[in-house]
This record gives sequence, C-alpha cells and structure tokens, in this order.
Amino acid sequence: MAAIGGGRRANVAHASTPQAYGPPAPEWEVAQWFNRDTPLTLADLRGQVVMLHAFQMLCPACVRLATPQAQQVHEQFGGQGLTVVGLHTVFEHHEAMRPVSLEAYIHENRLRFAIGVDQPDGHGGLPRTMRTYGMQGTPTLILIDRQGRVRQHSFGHVPDLALGAALGTLLAEG
Amino acid sequence: MAAIGGGRRANVAHASTPQAYGPPAPEWEVAQWFNRDTPLTLADLRGQVVMLHAFQMLCPACVRLATPQAQQVHEQFGGQGLTVVGLHTVFEHHEAMRPVSLEAYIHENRLRFAIGVDQPDGHGGLPRTMRTYGMQGTPTLILIDRQGRVRQHSFGHVPDLALGAALGTLLAEG
Amino acid sequence: MAAIGGGRRANVAHASTPQAYGPPAPEWEVAQWFNRDTPLTLADLRGQVVMLHAFQMLCPACVRLATPQAQQVHEQFGGQGLTVVGLHTVFEHHEAMRPVSLEAYIHENRLRFAIGVDQPDGHGGLPRTMRTYGMQGTPTLILIDRQGRVRQHSFGHVPDLALGAALGTLLAEG
Amino acid sequence: MAAIGGGRRANVAHASTPQAYGPPAPEWEVAQWFNRDTPLTLADLRGQVVMLHAFQMLCPACVRLATPQAQQVHEQFGGQGLTVVGLHTVFEHHEAMRPVSLEAYIHENRLRFAIGVDQPDGHGGLPRTMRTYGMQGTPTLILIDRQGRVRQHSFGHVPDLALGAALGTLLAEG
Repeated sequence: MAAIGGGRRANVAHASTPQAYGPPAPEWEVAQWFNRDTPLTLADLRGQVVMLHAFQMLCPACVRLATPQAQQVHEQFGGQGLTVVGLHTVFEHHEAMRPVSLEAYIHENRLRFAIGVDQPDGHGGLPRTMRTYGMQGTPTLILIDRQGRVRQHSFGHVPDLALGAALGTLLAEG
Repeated sequence: MAAIGGGRRANVAHASTPQAYGPPAPEWEVAQWFNRDTPLTLADLRGQVVMLHAFQMLCPACVRLATPQAQQVHEQFGGQGLTVVGLHTVFEHHEAMRPVSLEAYIHENRLRFAIGVDQPDGHGGLPRTMRTYGMQGTPTLILIDRQGRVRQHSFGHVPDLALGAALGTLLAEG
Repeated sequence: MAAIGGGRRANVAHASTPQAYGPPAPEWEVAQWFNRDTPLTLADLRGQVVMLHAFQMLCPACVRLATPQAQQVHEQFGGQGLTVVGLHTVFEHHEAMRPVSLEAYIHENRLRFAIGVDQPDGHGGLPRTMRTYGMQGTPTLILIDRQGRVRQHSFGHVPDLALGAALGTLLAEG
Repeated sequence: MAAIGGGRRANVAHASTPQAYGPPAPEWEVAQWFNRDTPLTLADLRGQVVMLHAFQMLCPACVRLATPQAQQVHEQFGGQGLTVVGLHTVFEHHEAMRPVSLEAYIHENRLRFAIGVDQPDGHGGLPRTMRTYGMQGTPTLILIDRQGRVRQHSFGHVPDLALGAALGTLLAEG
C-alpha cells in the first residue's frame, strides 16, 4: 500500500460496504489506454456497475493482492453488467513506471481488463483523476453504480468476501 | 471434499450463483446443538438470509477452507440480516466424529456460529437432513433467501468472491 | 498451538537451529502404531536422522501447518537417511481424540509416515513420552541425529526454510 | 517463470539437491550495483556459501516467490557464512526494466541484499553472466560452495524446504 506523503483528505465517500447513496462519479482523464483500441469514458458505461481499480505497477500491495483480484473480478463478472477499469495513478517514482514499463507489466501478468494511464499534471505531482477523486494512495477501489454514483471508495486492499458482497449488492440493483 | 460413495443425485437446485427462484427449504432435523442453548429452526429464521454450512470435522476441505469461511461470514455478516448455521452431517467414520469430538473441534477452532448435529438415520447411513436436501458430500453450501427458498446448493468449496456476491445479492432483496 | 496449562519447563535443548551437541534421546513409549505393522523403536533408527513430530489431531496449528509439513518431509527426505515419526501426544480433550478418531484423521489426510499413540499415564495427565521429553505443548519438533542425540527441540511451528536447513545440516553429518 | 525463447541448453550442473562436486563458478559481470557502495566479486566471497538469485523485476514467479525468498534467506542466514547476491538478468522487455525502474522496485520491496545489473551484451540479447552460466530463464538459483564451485543450478522456483536443505548441506561443509 502506498500512501501519498502529504496525507490529502478524500472528498468522496469512504466505506467498507456500499453506501446507500453517493455523489456523481467524475469523468476520468486518461493519457493512454492499454487493452483498448479506443478511449473508454465513464459515460460509455452508464447502466453498468463499474469497478475502478487505481494502482501503481510497483506498489507491492497492488501487485500481490489488488491487481490479481481486479483481473479475477473481470474474469468472473465482466460482461454480466459489470466493467473493471484499471487506472495507473503514478504519484511517485515517475521515471520508473513509464508507459513502456506498464505495458510489459500488463503483458507479463496477463491482465485483460482496460487500463488507462491517469493523466499527469505536468509538474510531477498527483495525476489528474487521482486528485479529482481525492484518492489517498494505491491501491484504491472505487465502485460506481448503474446511475454513475460513487458508492464505495476504499484505500487499501478489500478482501474478496467483502468485495464480492459489495458487487452483489450493486449488481442486484435494477 | 468428501463425496458419498453411492453418488446420490441431488433433488434441489445446484448452481454457482443464486438462482432467481428456488424450492422451499425443508426444515432441518438436529439431534443436538452447540453454541446454542435452545433449538434453532429454519422457521425461526424467516426474513433472514440463511447460510447453511454442511461439514464433517474430519473432511480436509471443510477444515482448511469451508469451515473457516463460514466463521468469517458469521463475523462479517452475522446480525445484518444473515444467519450462518453449521450442520455436522456425518456419513462416514461415524465412531471417529461423535459429538464429544465435535465439541472439542468447535472449541479448538473457536467457531461461534450455531452448529447442529444432523439427526442420524439409526442405521449408519446418511443423516436425515443430508438426505432430505439431497446433499452429495461435504462441504455443501446452501443459501436460503428471506422467503425460505433454496437459492443456491453447491457441493465443494465456493471461493470468497463468488460467495460474497451471492450473499450480497440475497441480502439486497427486500 | 496448544500449550500445557501448567507451563512445564523443558529438560532438553531448545533452539531454532541444531545444537552442536545434545543429550541422548530417550526411547519413546507407544501404546499403538498406525502405518506400521510392527512397533518401531528409536534404537531401530540408529544411524538415521529422526524427525519426531508430536501433535494432537485437534490442535489447529498442527492440522494447518506442522502435520502437513511432516508429511512433506516424509515424501521428500524419507528413505534418504531420514525417518519421520509422528507421536500423538494427547494432553487435553482425551475423549475427543481417541485412537478411532486418530485413525480416521490419518486416513482422511493421507498421512503415510509411522504414527504412534503416546502411552497415556493412566490418570488423564501428560502422556509418558511427552513428559519424558519435557514437551511444552503441540506441535513439538524434535530432531535426533545419527548418534541418537537430541539436537533440536522446538515448540510451535518451524518454518520450512529453517527446518530444511536443520535437516540438511544433520544429514550432512557422516 | 520466464524462459528464453530459443531454449538454450545449460552448460553447468542442474539438480534439485546439491551435487557432490561441481565446476568452478565463473566470475559475474555487473554493470551497476544496488545496496552496495563498491563492486562485489565472487572472488571476494571465497570461503562463503553464495546464493546467486537471477531474476527480472517483471517476471511474475520472481516477484511472487523467488525474490521474497532470497530476501528471507538473506535475513535468516546472511552473515552466518552465507551471502545472497541478486543478479538482474534482463533478456526481454529491456526498455521496461532499466536500472531506474529496478531501483524503485528494490526500494518498494525493501530488498536489502546486494543486487547487480547483469552486463548487457550491447546487442539486446542475453546479458553476459546469464550467457556464461548457461541460464535458461528467470528465476534461476545458483548455489556456490565455499570452494567456489557450482553445486546447484535450478531454473524455476525452488520450494523453501528443498532450498533450506541445500543451504544446510553446503553450510555444514568445513
């Protein structure tokens, strides 16, 4: 788990189970996509449950736990009303995690879900989507419901049982 | 995983995710309860989601996977509209798994959910609830919805992600 | 891990790696053997490295860690100058762990190494070999060298890397 | 586990336990060291058991199994007659695993043993030490005894129990 040094506070809901309501999810800003030929917008996914998996390819808790879990969710629930979207939110070691390295990481780990590179701010700070969503570090899990609302925002690994329950709850909503 | 030698077929729904509908769950027949002062009936639990965990204390897949998972579900979801009920369905090695051994097993593994001993048939065959439900062996997971219907019946271990999703789905139903 | 209530002190060497020297290992006292047609004595094994695995079939750390490890050592090193001997040292829940239950446990978990039932003291206290060796609970690992000396005595699980190194050291001795 | 496409054959001993004898270990060729202020040569380590851990920072079996194991060996056996040396043998995705990325990887995973970058051949092929040792891919484990001989050469992950035994054997040699 990698936390932002400055300890920025989040400006959206944080909970271990889905909130009953939540704020509208802002659109992501992506510089480049992997596993996609064309850009993917949040607006495209209205009507789907969206699991946004924010990670860094050198963050140990992402590599060991959260990213394999995202791939597993993609395999088991993808195309059943749920879309997994990866977001590479580099906020440290920028030179070490450039897109050429991310591409090899995706290839070696056989990740199949769409992964976007969060748009850098141009000054070596937090990338744009990370800042917009008020993420505190990586991994961060954000669950967006069929109406496009942020219903869960969790920093750190969420165990399979809790994640499964949250997904089941959101998928059950008409 | 321990399968019944004779390979009896199940007479209730089998699925990896909750069925949309299901047959009424029959009442269980229990000879003795642990972690309960008074008997617990399925009728008592109407309005709750019920996770019935059928196991044997010497079945390796139960010990390693399914029983610890049942305890974890009890800790995370118990009292939130869900009740976990253990059922000790001894169909082999009867002398090895008598209630005195089960009691020590429950104590040593710190299991806290209600556990009933499935009523023996008196002839060393399948115990009664196991037969009524058409279980094929242990572990068996049966999910019963708030209306008392069997919505999932799975023989063998169900991974956390899939179980969580099934529980989330059933809990989301009004 | 199950510790003896009274916290008896050990009277033999305790170490995380093999001691350079050690006291002569006392003979074990066994009421009944499994996976053996004839009794096995320590004297029979002179010239072999002996890994004595003391356990209880309902001790969680034994079931999860130490007993599967003993089986693995038996498979990888058995017959290469090393013999694994299991010892069922029941010091609690005596009625729950009688030989009929142990036999089913051995069968279900496919344990193949020789396992002896430590001789009860006749008064429901510590069984005899457990007392002689000064064991503090289960699991206990005792490593005996080719000359019959106790070179390691560890209470609690010993990780594979450390156990492997200890076995390699003792096996390398002429 | 990442195998070299061309399937080059190894020119040194391959075994799952230490060979009784082995060829002299060739000196490694390193472009740059991490966790070291000065270069480290094999000659410097004569009299020590050397565990050479060849890896790539984006090879999944290295990340998940072999590199954490190397760190664990360093912690438990380092300074007791054994030295762990990491060798970053990049033979694919060269642009993705440059030293700046390796440095962040080492930092994030808190690796403390000496790690050298295997000298590139200048043509995008196998790096020099990898070729000299006849390695077939990553991870590769090479154990060198106190006399500087290659006693074990294993491609793929070696489980803790087997590795521990091999280390114990080599450390026991005078």
